[in-house]
Order: sequence, then C-alpha cells, then structure tokens
Amino acid sequence: MLAAKSTVKIGELATGQPLTVPIYCFKGACSSAPSLYLQANVHGAEVQGNAVIFQLLKLLEQCQILGDITLVPLANPLAINQKSGEFTLGRFDPITGNNWNRDYVNCTPDLSDWYAKHQELDDSLLITQYRQQLLNRCQQQLTSEWGITSGQRQALTLQSIAFHADVVLDLHTGPKSCKHLYCPEYAQAKVSLFNIGCTLLMPNEFAGAMDEAMFYPWWQLTKVAASHGRELPVAVEAYTLELGSQELIDLVDAKQDALAILAYLSDKGIIADAFKPAQMPRYACLLQDYKKFHAPIAGMVEYLAPLGKPLTAQQPLVNILRLDRYGTDEELQTLALQQDCIPVLHFASASVYQGTELYKVMTNYVEIPR
Amino acid sequence: MLAAKSTVKIGELATGQPLTVPIYCFKGACSSAPSLYLQANVHGAEVQGNAVIFQLLKLLEQCQILGDITLVPLANPLAINQKSGEFTLGRFDPITGNNWNRDYVNCTPDLSDWYAKHQELDDSLLITQYRQQLLNRCQQQLTSEWGITSGQRQALTLQSIAFHADVVLDLHTGPKSCKHLYCPEYAQAKVSLFNIGCTLLMPNEFAGAMDEAMFYPWWQLTKVAASHGRELPVAVEAYTLELGSQELIDLVDAKQDALAILAYLSDKGIIADAFKPAQMPRYACLLQDYKKFHAPIAGMVEYLAPLGKPLTAQQPLVNILRLDRYGTDEELQTLALQQDCIPVLHFASASVYQGTELYKVMTNYVEIPR
Amino acid sequence: MLAAKSTVKIGELATGQPLTVPIYCFKGACSSAPSLYLQANVHGAEVQGNAVIFQLLKLLEQCQILGDITLVPLANPLAINQKSGEFTLGRFDPITGNNWNRDYVNCTPDLSDWYAKHQELDDSLLITQYRQQLLNRCQQQLTSEWGITSGQRQALTLQSIAFHADVVLDLHTGPKSCKHLYCPEYAQAKVSLFNIGCTLLMPNEFAGAMDEAMFYPWWQLTKVAASHGRELPVAVEAYTLELGSQELIDLVDAKQDALAILAYLSDKGIIADAFKPAQMPRYACLLQDYKKFHAPIAGMVEYLAPLGKPLTAQQPLVNILRLDRYGTDEELQTLALQQDCIPVLHFASASVYQGTELYKVMTNYVEIPR
Amino acid sequence: MLAAKSTVKIGELATGQPLTVPIYCFKGACSSAPSLYLQANVHGAEVQGNAVIFQLLKLLEQCQILGDITLVPLANPLAINQKSGEFTLGRFDPITGNNWNRDYVNCTPDLSDWYAKHQELDDSLLITQYRQQLLNRCQQQLTSEWGITSGQRQALTLQSIAFHADVVLDLHTGPKSCKHLYCPEYAQAKVSLFNIGCTLLMPNEFAGAMDEAMFYPWWQLTKVAASHGRELPVAVEAYTLELGSQELIDLVDAKQDALAILAYLSDKGIIADAFKPAQMPRYACLLQDYKKFHAPIAGMVEYLAPLGKPLTAQQPLVNILRLDRYGTDEELQTLALQQDCIPVLHFASASVYQGTELYKVMTNYVEIPR
Repeated sequence: MLAAKSTVKIGELATGQPLTVPIYCFKGACSSAPSLYLQANVHGAEVQGNAVIFQLLKLLEQCQILGDITLVPLANPLAINQKSGEFTLGRFDPITGNNWNRDYVNCTPDLSDWYAKHQELDDSLLITQYRQQLLNRCQQQLTSEWGITSGQRQALTLQSIAFHADVVLDLHTGPKSCKHLYCPEYAQAKVSLFNIGCTLLMPNEFAGAMDEAMFYPWWQLTKVAASHGRELPVAVEAYTLELGSQELIDLVDAKQDALAILAYLSDKGIIADAFKPAQMPRYACLLQDYKKFHAPIAGMVEYLAPLGKPLTAQQPLVNILRLDRYGTDEELQTLALQQDCIPVLHFASASVYQGTELYKVMTNYVEIPR
Repeated sequence: MLAAKSTVKIGELATGQPLTVPIYCFKGACSSAPSLYLQANVHGAEVQGNAVIFQLLKLLEQCQILGDITLVPLANPLAINQKSGEFTLGRFDPITGNNWNRDYVNCTPDLSDWYAKHQELDDSLLITQYRQQLLNRCQQQLTSEWGITSGQRQALTLQSIAFHADVVLDLHTGPKSCKHLYCPEYAQAKVSLFNIGCTLLMPNEFAGAMDEAMFYPWWQLTKVAASHGRELPVAVEAYTLELGSQELIDLVDAKQDALAILAYLSDKGIIADAFKPAQMPRYACLLQDYKKFHAPIAGMVEYLAPLGKPLTAQQPLVNILRLDRYGTDEELQTLALQQDCIPVLHFASASVYQGTELYKVMTNYVEIPR
Repeated sequence: MLAAKSTVKIGELATGQPLTVPIYCFKGACSSAPSLYLQANVHGAEVQGNAVIFQLLKLLEQCQILGDITLVPLANPLAINQKSGEFTLGRFDPITGNNWNRDYVNCTPDLSDWYAKHQELDDSLLITQYRQQLLNRCQQQLTSEWGITSGQRQALTLQSIAFHADVVLDLHTGPKSCKHLYCPEYAQAKVSLFNIGCTLLMPNEFAGAMDEAMFYPWWQLTKVAASHGRELPVAVEAYTLELGSQELIDLVDAKQDALAILAYLSDKGIIADAFKPAQMPRYACLLQDYKKFHAPIAGMVEYLAPLGKPLTAQQPLVNILRLDRYGTDEELQTLALQQDCIPVLHFASASVYQGTELYKVMTNYVEIPR
Repeated sequence: MLAAKSTVKIGELATGQPLTVPIYCFKGACSSAPSLYLQANVHGAEVQGNAVIFQLLKLLEQCQILGDITLVPLANPLAINQKSGEFTLGRFDPITGNNWNRDYVNCTPDLSDWYAKHQELDDSLLITQYRQQLLNRCQQQLTSEWGITSGQRQALTLQSIAFHADVVLDLHTGPKSCKHLYCPEYAQAKVSLFNIGCTLLMPNEFAGAMDEAMFYPWWQLTKVAASHGRELPVAVEAYTLELGSQELIDLVDAKQDALAILAYLSDKGIIADAFKPAQMPRYACLLQDYKKFHAPIAGMVEYLAPLGKPLTAQQPLVNILRLDRYGTDEELQTLALQQDCIPVLHFASASVYQGTELYKVMTNYVEIPR
C-alpha cells in the first residue's frame, strides 16, 4: 500500500513562495503500537537520507505496519536549494550562520511545578498530558508576538509533528564520514539494533538538535519522577543516524540502511515483519570523548587515516603539504595523535586554515558485545 | 608623537600566509594611570571603527598620554577579506557559521577555589594575580593538545593582549543602525560619558563576546569578594560601541567619535587633556528588553521607522510589498508594534524571508538624566 | 480595472518546487497600438523595480490603455532568494558565476538567407514573420537535446514572452547609483522622454543582456534591409532603466518613476492618457566612453564624488585608508581622475581589493538639449 | 639540487596584505634547450596540481636539467583561501563571478601590421621580437590608466612570467573527473606523450584561458606567416592538464603524474633524463564535440556512468530521485544519452536545479593509435 502524502508549510521565501515539505504517512494497524517519525536532509548537503526514505517507502509498502509511520524527506528546502559554487551550502542559515540543527526549541516545562500538579496520574495519562504540554509550548513559540527566526519556524513546525511520535529518527550524514549514531545514554542497549559501527552516547543535555529536542523533555520527566521515587521509563526514543558522506546519493547503500532501520522497527513492534540487525563490530564512546582535532598549521591536506576503524597512537592521520615552505622541514609534515582512537569523519576540503577541524575521532571507546 | 607599530599573528591561511593584525601603542607617562585596549573590525563589514582609530591616532599624537594605549584596527583579516558578491561576508566564520564575536573564551577560574587561596592579598596584588591567572588560562587554551578553531585562536590572541588593559573598547557597527552602546550594568554611571544616544545594559553573563570576555571574570571576582564581605570594585571596564552602519567609511563622523572617546579617556585619567562629552538625550534599557522583531511574512521591505528616536505604539515600522498578491489585501501591508520603543537598527537587505530579523528595538527604555 | 494575473514556470529547485514568476496583463483597447513588456528584479538585489511595477499597476488601473501591457515583477526567484549574510547575492548564478543578465540568447537568424527569402513581404508582414522566426528559435533552444543552463531557461522563457512586444523595458538598479538609462543608439531621440539624468548609448552589439536580446535582431534586420536599399525602421525599442541603488524599496520614489514611464507610454501611444516627461538636465555618452575605474591599491574606501553630477578632472573621487601604513604617506590617499566625468555608480562595499571596480563614470559626455 | 625560490605579488587584500605566489626555478644547463612554465591551482579547489609540483620538485632535484624550468604552485591565493561552508569557492571571483581562468588577456598585436614590419627577420629573431611584443602589451595592460580588475592583474602577472617559456602547462582538475587534457589542434601529435586518457582538441580561438593566452598569439603568427608563404612552426606549446577531481590531495597519484610530465619534458629536451610515456588507450575529440548535458529536471542525483570509459547510447547516465513525486512515474527516473560518448566529468553535488550541468562527455571521439 502506498503511503499517504501531505505537505506542510515551514516558511516563506522573499518572493512569497511557500517553503513546503512533503510528508508520507503509513497508518498503523494497531493503536497500541508505538509510532515513528523519521526526517531527512535538515542539512542541505546531507541528501542520502532521502534515498533511504525512498527505499523505506518501497519496503514498507510490502510490510505489515502496526504503528503509525511518518516519513519526512527534503526537510529543509531553503538549505537544500542554497548552492555556493558546485556545492550545497546547507549547514547553516545563510543569513545568520545558525546551524540548522541547533534551532530546535527546548519545550520542557518547569517540571517541579508541572510534576507536582500531575503526579497522581497513571503512567499512560501522565505521558499523554505531558505530550500535550510539549505541543502547547511548541504552539506558543510559533505564535510569539515578536515572531521567531526562519530556522525556529522550520524547527518548531517539524517538532510539532514529531512530538506525536514515540520514536524519532533524524537522518544526517557527516562531511566525509563512516556511518555513526548519536544515541542518548538511557537507550544504549538499543545500539546493537542499528547496523552502524560507531556510536556516540549523549548525556541528558539540550543543545538545540532535533534528537535532543525530542528526548530531553522525556528524560527530564523520568528524572523528576525518580526524584519522587517513581520509576517511569523514558517514553520517547530519539536518535540521529549519520549515514555516510554528504553530497552523495547511493540507492544500493540506501537499501541496506532501510533494511537496517526495519530491523529496529521490527524490534520496537512498529512493524510486524521480522528483520534482524547484522552481526558486526560496534564501538561506542561518550560524547565528551568524541574529540575534534584542529589543524595546528594551515596547508594542503592528504587525509590518511581510514574512517570507522581503530587507529593506534602515532599512526599517521594526515599529511600537510606546504609548498610555500619547499626546501625546509615544513614542506611536508605528517601529523598523528598521541592516543588510540577511531576516526569517524574528516573535513570535506583538502585545503585548510590553521584551526580548521580536520578529524573527529572517538577516544576511550569500547566495543559493544554482540 | 607617532604611535609605535607592531604586528601580531592570529592564524594562517590555507596557502600558508600568516593572518596578521597591526597594533599601535602609545606608552603612558604615568605608571599608575589606567591603560586602554581598543580594537575594531572584528566583523568584516563593520569598517568604520578603523576610521575612528585613524582619527584617534591623529588626535592622540597631540595629547598628553598618561596610561598605556593600545589600538588594534583591522582585527579580523579573514573576515574583512571575505567577499560574497559586492558585500563583505564578515559576520561569521565562512566554514562553521560561528559569529566571530562569540568565539571569545571565558577564562574565569573556579573562583571559590581561587579566591580562597588568594583572599589575603590586598586589592592591588589580588588584581595583579588574578590578571596573571586570566593570562595563564588564555595561554593554556592557545596550546591545547587538540588544537582550537580558527576563531578561537584569533579571539584568544586578542584577549591575551587585551587582558593587560583596565579599559577595553570594542568598536562595531550595526547593519543599518544608529549609534548604540553595550554597557555592563555595573558601569551604567559611565553611559553619559559616551556621545551615544542608545545604551543596552548587560547583565553579568558570558555569551562569547569580547566585552563579556573582558568584564565577566572581574565582575565575578567582585561578586565572590562581596559574598566574603569584601567590597572590591570591578577592576576592568569593557564596552562595545556600535558606531552606525556597516560598509561605510566616513572620516568626518569618525573624528566626532574619536573626540567623544577622548572625553571618556579624559574622565578615566588615561589622557591628561580635557575633552568633554556632549549634551544630548541618552536612552537606556536592559538587554532583556532589547527586542528583535522578526518578519511575520516574507516580501519586499520598505523600512519606515527612523532609527534612534522614540516611536509610539502603532506607528508604522515597515511596509511589506507582495507582488505575488497584487489585487488582494496582502499586496501591501504596513506593520507596527503594540508598544512604545526606540528602533535601533534594521536589516540590511530590502527583501526578507518569513522570520528574518527586521528591526531591533529598545522597549521599557528610560531617558538618562543629563 | 485590475490587471489579469498569470504565472510562468522558469525552472525547478533541487527539491522539486517550480520556480515561478507572476505576470500581470492589461489588454489594450486598440489592436494597432504598440504593446509593452516590462520586467523587474532579474538581479536579485535590485528590488526597486518591483515597487515601480506596483505603482504602475495602481496608476494603470485608472488609465485608458490602448496597447497590451505585460508587467513581470520578481523575474528571477532563484536570485532574489539567494542570501549570503545580510545581503542578496543575486547578481550571478551561484553555481556558475554567470551574470543573470548575460544569459539571454541571440535569436537572430542567418539574415542574408532569411531576408533573401522574405524580402518581397511588405513591412508589416515582414515584421510579423520575423517575430515568428525569433519565437521559433527561442523555442528550439528551450527544447535542445543537450538541455540548457538554469540561467538560459529563465532567460529564454522571459524572451519568449517579451518577443511579442514592441517595447521592452528591463528595470534594474546599480549598486550605489544615480538613475541611468541604457538606450540603443538608434533610439537616442527618445532619451528625453525618460526622467533619467544619465544615458549610455549602446551600439548594435549582442553581449547577452535582455535589452540587447530584444533590439539586436531588429536592428540587424533594419541594417540588412538598408543594405538592400530598403528603409525599414527598427520595429522594437528596448531599454534598461537603472532606477537608483540596490537593496532599497522606496514607494514614493517608485511612484515618480512610474509616472515617468507613463509619460513614455503616452508618447508611444500605449496609453491614451497624457503624461509629460520632466524638464531636467540630461547627459549622455557612448557606451565605449562609460569607464570603470579600478582600485589601484586595496584598502578602506570613503566614496567622495557625488553621483549623477559633472565632476571636473582632479576633483577627489575616493579616499583610501590604509591602517597598516599608519605613519607613512600611504596611510590616507585621495584619488582623482585626470579628466572630466560624471560618476554614475560606485561599489557597494567600503573595503576593496586591489582591482575592485570603484566607480563607473561617463566620459566625453554631452548634455542633451531639452 | 634544490630549486631557487622567489615570490611574486599578484594583488592586495582589502586589509593591505599582499597576495603573493611562490615561484620555484631550476636553471637549465643548455641555453638552446626549450624552457618550461608550469602553474597549478588557479581554481581554488583544484589543489592536486600542488602535489604534482611537489613531486616534480623532488624528482627534478635528481635530474639533469637542460632548459629553464619555472614551477608556480598555489597560483591564486585569493581563490584558494575563499571558503564557503566546508568547500573552497574558488572557481570564480567572489565579487564579479568571473571565472578565474577566463581573465587572461589576448596580447596578440595587430598582426597584419606587425608581420609586415618584421617579416624580414629570420625565424629566431622573429620569435624573440614577437615575444618581446607580447611582454610589452602585457606590461601596458598592467599599467592602464583606468586600472584593471583583480583577476586581470593576477592573470597578466602570471602571463608576463609565462611568456618567457616555450612550453606552458596549466594544472587543473575537474569537479569529479577522470584525467583529461586540453591540447591545441596543432600539437595533437604530442597527445601520446601524456599519460592522460582523454583529450580535447582546441581550435585557434581565444576565450580567456591561460593555455589559449599562451598559444593563440603564436598560432596566429604562424597563420599569418603561412599566408605570406612562410612555413613557421608554432613556437610555443601550451596545454591544460586536468588531473582528476577537486578537493583532493593524493601524493602517490601525484608522483605518477609528475613522472608522466617528466616523460613529456624528456621528449622536448627540457631534461636530459629518459622517461617514457605509458602504453594506454587514449581518446580524443574536437572541443566542439565535448558536450555538456544539463539536467532536464531537478532532483537528487545518483551518478551512474563511470568516467573515462566509452559508454554506449542508452546506457544509464544518472538516476534522478524526486521524493516530492513519490507514487508517480516521476519518483525515480533514469536518464541516458542518445549517442555513444565518453563521460569525462560530472557535477560535484548530488542535488541539482533544472539546468545544472550534470555531465560533460566526449562525442564523435577517436582512439589515438599507440
């Protein structure tokens, strides 16, 4: 069965044209099954998530769907259509420089107050009321007297749809990157359900990303309940999946990722069909151990360290070529790190200023038992 | 007497060329007089501060200088040289989108610990040691094992010079703007020393700007001392002066601003010459009452409200022209605010997306007694 | 009577949304009256033409319209919506760098061949057939096997509408500019019909601009006819009107320009109402005498020469401030030209590289008798 | 022996810093041997030529050098340092949109006049005087009263060095590209000296590129001499080598390309050492048969056709994914060409507007006999 299409308006261009996003929905057969919200391409150059959604659509047409499924490709038309030379300049708002994935709004209410008023509700009602509260706060922001930024309007509009779901997946890519997963610490047992080799475990903090905007209010609620002696599981799971490199559409790889997402949906009971995650090595580290290595000197860069595999200390990371220094010790320098790591992504360009982020690497990582 | 010139390196371009900034110093005649650090053009398009420094140099050559004076024009060569079409794209790092004036680092130590160890020192020594502590932390950041971003390297290099001064002035401009001043609340008595009509009073918070990086550690020290019953004045004053509009060099206006800065230096005892601030209306509000008005709809914008003057509620702020809506009520809409304000700046372009920041206005403002 | 609205699709964004342009038409009462095509905002930042179209719409609603009138505002949505920082980066295609007003296509057929085949037709039929030929060639390009660029698709789509008209006006602005007119040499007698102080007289050459794409084929036809001893007036007039500075909407000034355009339409018999051009000084020079002055040195620029008025040789044009050269002869340099001129426009930014175009000036200009 | 280093200034940044380019020279042992000028990285993102120069420097240190060799890496510092997001926006001047490799100047004199005055000279003297004439015209342009653009200053400064050489190589890359060569038609016998699979044969036309600026005046001279019955070989050879993809430094591949260039230098007698070109298939077509295929529709693009290999008509070129059209025939479209070709390069981004250049392909190509 085909998914049903609708469209949501998330803004307006200077010429008056609406900025719209397509939304595809499968209605679940079972009202008690959890629901899914999945979006892609909030950063303009990170297009592969659209291909994954395409493959998911094709596969889900053949599945037995239990929970409601909402798929939102091309989620940021302003960013996707913003070219600068031959590349898509879609990581930040071209006017303000704001990262599009830092514009989501923390809708958590004052929980000491809210919990006090609602603590007598049973878990199910508590969750329903809390969800409504999040939606209300979303709506208030959208209609603020002073207006909101273009980025916030887009973010809040997507949030107001996603808040209805029990599982939220946000599909991104790195610049040049292996696949990796941002997972809240409370959900780390789920890591082995994804066919993704590298996982960053996120603390209970809010920094403006979609996944945080989704899990933070619920994790806070769980914490407050716990402080009152009540064991309330975190009701919503939210992840960011970084599915390889930007500026790339690969339909074959997209099918693999779609199948892997089905394995997760299968485990969650969102679909009735049985898909299994792969047997593969999986590594994880805390977000605080996910380190950025900045170019200590400028120059032309040859990226040497392969992505997604352990690299021991002192193994070469990059060569930096300095043709202005030919004939000196500085004409070609090989840089390495002082500690073991797993390189996860590197910068997209082969020429860097001093200070440009060359690599992001996992340190103090562990292998997750299969 | 001419100022002495030196040069500081703040980064490296991809081609290897150093990013350098010129520094001009006048040595003060009196070692007990306070010292000044003044920089300009950290945002690439905000060039007028350079003209003000030029006029200051010419005027100071004729003055009797008591305290050390350090003038740093063209402080962000990467941003100043970053063109995009006919304009300077210098508000944020072109790679990361980071606002160049949010890259400064909070060098405040753990004060409960630090103060406990140094509280027996007299005020003068306490200040000397604390300043050294700030410089040390600055230096540690600059030599971090993982490197630092291009923006942080520039910011920390400038900070490490500015930390030596007792007064720090950071010259900026708005997009299309009247002159306005960012002043920390503790220094609000000084507002009438500047020939600037509009003042925003800043709380004791750190958000990455130069002025905050300068005053925040000292204001914190004062607060901690107060909590131990010691009355320690805030040792450093720091202000951001927004001297009109970007992309404009006006040497005549620059001379007026240079003379006005001399009035402040005169009052502080940094120069012996007597310059007096002007008699003029001055308005101030709290930073939290400095509001951004975002475009509720997209379109072509005619900016109607004049800058720097009180505007009563319901007076027109902008016309928004929508030629896609000719023949409807929406072809031309006049927008107004529901409360009295002073418009301080407006957006630089005449076409806006929905959500673009149209105006920044002071609300709940007061007139400062002359 | 309101103009009738339609919409034309000129391209597609990466997300699939059509790029559309609104078109407003007044049907003329007299089939023999000449027709008008007028467009605005092909360069993204040059928005004032939209305001002029708005005022024209309002005025034409009250006029007695003889010839068909087609008004096309917001003609380049991709460019208008392309922001880079606080400005509109709309002068060239962000991917290729191609100036949007150099993408029009020369649809002139091989005239030696075509004229030989059609020379026996009377003037009216000759013109009709030639117009059809231009439209056919336009259409062939649009459906080329190898495709065409985004810019060409937009240009050819607009051309295919404009080719139907007898008069074509393309509304632009300069960066910081006085009003000026591009007029083909054959139409120079019409210069005093426009309320524009400065006119550039264009030769019979094609360089990709809309006005050239419109008049060049007809001027060529007239030339070929003349070479066969036939006096055929140039059947189409086309002008580019540069109505002041970019990034500015001014509805009052727009009304003045709309009234002035009505004076021209009145003279042409496109409207029955009588509007008269203003008495004012008007200057003209040949396009080859319209000179660009490039910055001989880099620096911060104070633009001194007023626009639209004669400037005698040696009068100051700009100050160039070089704060890296403080204390030398090069700290502040005043530049002037060696000959009399009328400065027409200057660069939009106040900081320039060596070689940036500082001013465009008319040389060897004449005053047009009133 | 190390090459000797010097530096040339090609412009000035707005902050006053000179734009400089390093120049490395090996002095040839034999004054009658031809000389070489080789430059790289005129387009900012096309960095691999620097790596080739690095490897050439290392190899040439060990060679017996007969003719003078001038190597110019990092030839366009303004472009190389121009970032926009994570990529280098270095294909065109950020202010004007002018392609940096279209700013070279045709220095050919009026040859009917010049040849008449110099025809009695023998070939060697004729060439010497003509070269001087080119240098003079270069110099005149550089000191023009009205100034020249930033791009022209850079181009003319490099030209004024390159005009001294008998062989000029300009190292570029495509976006995503196989290696290919631009070769003037008169030099097509030399194609098999380069280890490059695809060659475009250029006619005797000038369109602003470095190679054209070098060979065009000499080819014209040869043509004029021929029209006077004199057989004068074209004295200068100039080629553009496109060495793979942009934003990539690969030192191993660079060494292969350096060795291949040595094979050419060996053949020309610029070095005494014997290096041989590889046995490999080589294809060529006329420049007019090198076709651009523009996206007939917008969307997300999967590039399917491999680069550098023959592709028969109707084989898939790209998939275009349209998630706004899910559930229709347009959701996924495979595009192909109607004729055989060799795809040489494709667009760098995976999302395109309608009209974006998707592929450049050789048609009507021939295999060059080994």
